[in-house]
Amino acid sequence: MTHEAGIPLGIKFKLLSDTPQDSAAQVVSEVVVGDYRDLDTLRAFARGCDVITFDHEHVPTEHLRALEADGIPVRPGPDALVHAQDKGVMRAKLTEIGAPCPRHRIVKDPADVAAFAEETGGFPVVLKTVRGGYDGKGVWVVRSEAEAAEPFRAGVAVLAEEKVDFVRELAANIVRSPHGQAVAYPVVESIQVDGVCDTVIAPAPELDERLAGEAQQLALKVASELGVVGHLAVELFETRDGRILVNELAMRPHNSGHWTQDGAITSQFANHVRAVLDLPLGDPRPRATWTVMSNVLGGDFPDMYQAYLHCMARDPQLKIHMYGKDVKPGRKVGHVNTYGDDLADVRERARHAADYLRGTITE
Amino acid sequence: MTHEAGIPLGIKFKLLSDTPQDSAAQVVSEVVVGDYRDLDTLRAFARGCDVITFDHEHVPTEHLRALEADGIPVRPGPDALVHAQDKGVMRAKLTEIGAPCPRHRIVKDPADVAAFAEETGGFPVVLKTVRGGYDGKGVWVVRSEAEAAEPFRAGVAVLAEEKVDFVRELAANIVRSPHGQAVAYPVVESIQVDGVCDTVIAPAPELDERLAGEAQQLALKVASELGVVGHLAVELFETRDGRILVNELAMRPHNSGHWTQDGAITSQFANHVRAVLDLPLGDPRPRATWTVMSNVLGGDFPDMYQAYLHCMARDPQLKIHMYGKDVKPGRKVGHVNTYGDDLADVRERARHAADYLRGTITE
Repeated sequence: MTHEAGIPLGIKFKLLSDTPQDSAAQVVSEVVVGDYRDLDTLRAFARGCDVITFDHEHVPTEHLRALEADGIPVRPGPDALVHAQDKGVMRAKLTEIGAPCPRHRIVKDPADVAAFAEETGGFPVVLKTVRGGYDGKGVWVVRSEAEAAEPFRAGVAVLAEEKVDFVRELAANIVRSPHGQAVAYPVVESIQVDGVCDTVIAPAPELDERLAGEAQQLALKVASELGVVGHLAVELFETRDGRILVNELAMRPHNSGHWTQDGAITSQFANHVRAVLDLPLGDPRPRATWTVMSNVLGGDFPDMYQAYLHCMARDPQLKIHMYGKDVKPGRKVGHVNTYGDDLADVRERARHAADYLRGTITE
Repeated sequence: MTHEAGIPLGIKFKLLSDTPQDSAAQVVSEVVVGDYRDLDTLRAFARGCDVITFDHEHVPTEHLRALEADGIPVRPGPDALVHAQDKGVMRAKLTEIGAPCPRHRIVKDPADVAAFAEETGGFPVVLKTVRGGYDGKGVWVVRSEAEAAEPFRAGVAVLAEEKVDFVRELAANIVRSPHGQAVAYPVVESIQVDGVCDTVIAPAPELDERLAGEAQQLALKVASELGVVGHLAVELFETRDGRILVNELAMRPHNSGHWTQDGAITSQFANHVRAVLDLPLGDPRPRATWTVMSNVLGGDFPDMYQAYLHCMARDPQLKIHMYGKDVKPGRKVGHVNTYGDDLADVRERARHAADYLRGTITE
């Protein structure tokens, strides 16, 4: 999707991909298949690149430092990206800059988890490995000391967080360029099912204007304090008592910003590319009253063409974005965007299309 | 741009390209460099393709018939496409189906041109080679028998047409699928400079509603009678006495439809891809009150990055579409789209950006 956004500007991408089957590898002309954890591979790949950016946060921080030392601009740079890679570093920094977070601390064993629970009002407690989590992986909600053993088995540091009593999840998406210009998208509501983002509504319905402004200011402050370049998604909890707390950070175009492809004047992908190249950023304002994004999960319906026939005929305004992935149960294989003036209608259309493309419904 | 529109649907393109430098060859993963005039090349290329479509009309009609005989779906098919390839065949067919055309006939030499002039009210007369013209090439406006020699030198049949007294040029863009569904975009005004499209305004300002409807109906009828599949642009003259006459046909996404990328719910490229795959078509309605497209011609300003800095900073809503072509004077190297409620403002923004990207202005 970043390549798609780069085409109109004549931006040429070279892609380092795990496998030739990866989504991006199917559409980018120049693909190198290799392991992003191997510094020699990264160095050989980086030769001749004007700038490097990412569609995930898993390239080891020290390798990115090595590339920077070689003179290759890395955007976002390792000093920023480490906050999206390591939840321990992220919590420490956010606390330092005064960004509101759930109570948290690094815990060393199940007994320490029990002590943390005691300090913060009791179980349940959320445990997260500080590195390697994604879409609910690497996250546990534990109700007792006995349940707290599992997260420690990976040999990665474990962060304990209070389980926040939230009314919903929000996301504040902003894009920042190296010379410090930044744009803020409207704050969205993100609806999770089984720890995976299911639907995003832009803007978040009935969100208090003051809280929306606070969320945007917070995201801008985080980006500035951490030196983020490119797209930053700040995933937030809206608490029952009207506060926002930072849940996670992502420094790349993010699922909570996919609605911008069809719902904003400039998409998150286009603005990420512009930021990475230090070009002036595009207008982030919405083009419709409401835009809804629903993820398509892999189901029992691998024949996308048949599903397209139904979905496109039913809703000529539907925007389908499939990733060319093999359909595996539960895997995000695409998303749909709908927009319009009537939120109930816009939501129903997105829901129907996502369910039909997944194969959950057949009519 | 067709590849760009195919990405969200997971459509995999294989490209037959003249050179590795062609615009599409820079962004499509699977590129075969070869000569589209060579049947063996076409046959080898076509093997394994589900369907073949085009971004120009120059593949020889008989080669397309051979591919069809091999069982490869060609969309639009040769029986339709010949009308966009051969202006003599086009005029004969349009006349047969009652589509309004300038008076015309095939002429055999300069004396015959003089006879045609006499029949139709005198010189000037427009002469066109029936095949091979593009952007004003292959077209002559002659004022005397003596001036009429040049077009006959190419050894291609020559069509004479009366020089129409038009107030402006319009274009009716429609998309038609194999099962016969069709969608009509709003009729646009196309402003030509030196025989090359400069600016397109969507919808055509102050166009009589009845005439707009007539133009859309005409394009739909042409598509249906000629069996067009995919995008059809019908370029029209609006005459001083309030009629429309067909100027040219194009059977592919067309310059007069580039505004749809940012100004319509579904772009001409997305709908062309959907039509070629016999998928239901997307909504062709506009998303803004006015959308203006201005072409960027190659000028003295090969450093696009510097131009981007200015254009993007000046107008954060500007949509730039560059083709990755070497900048050569007068060559179409890209276009810009702007949209909004105030036509004068929208036009000024497109004009400024196109001129700045060309290097005609520097502030």
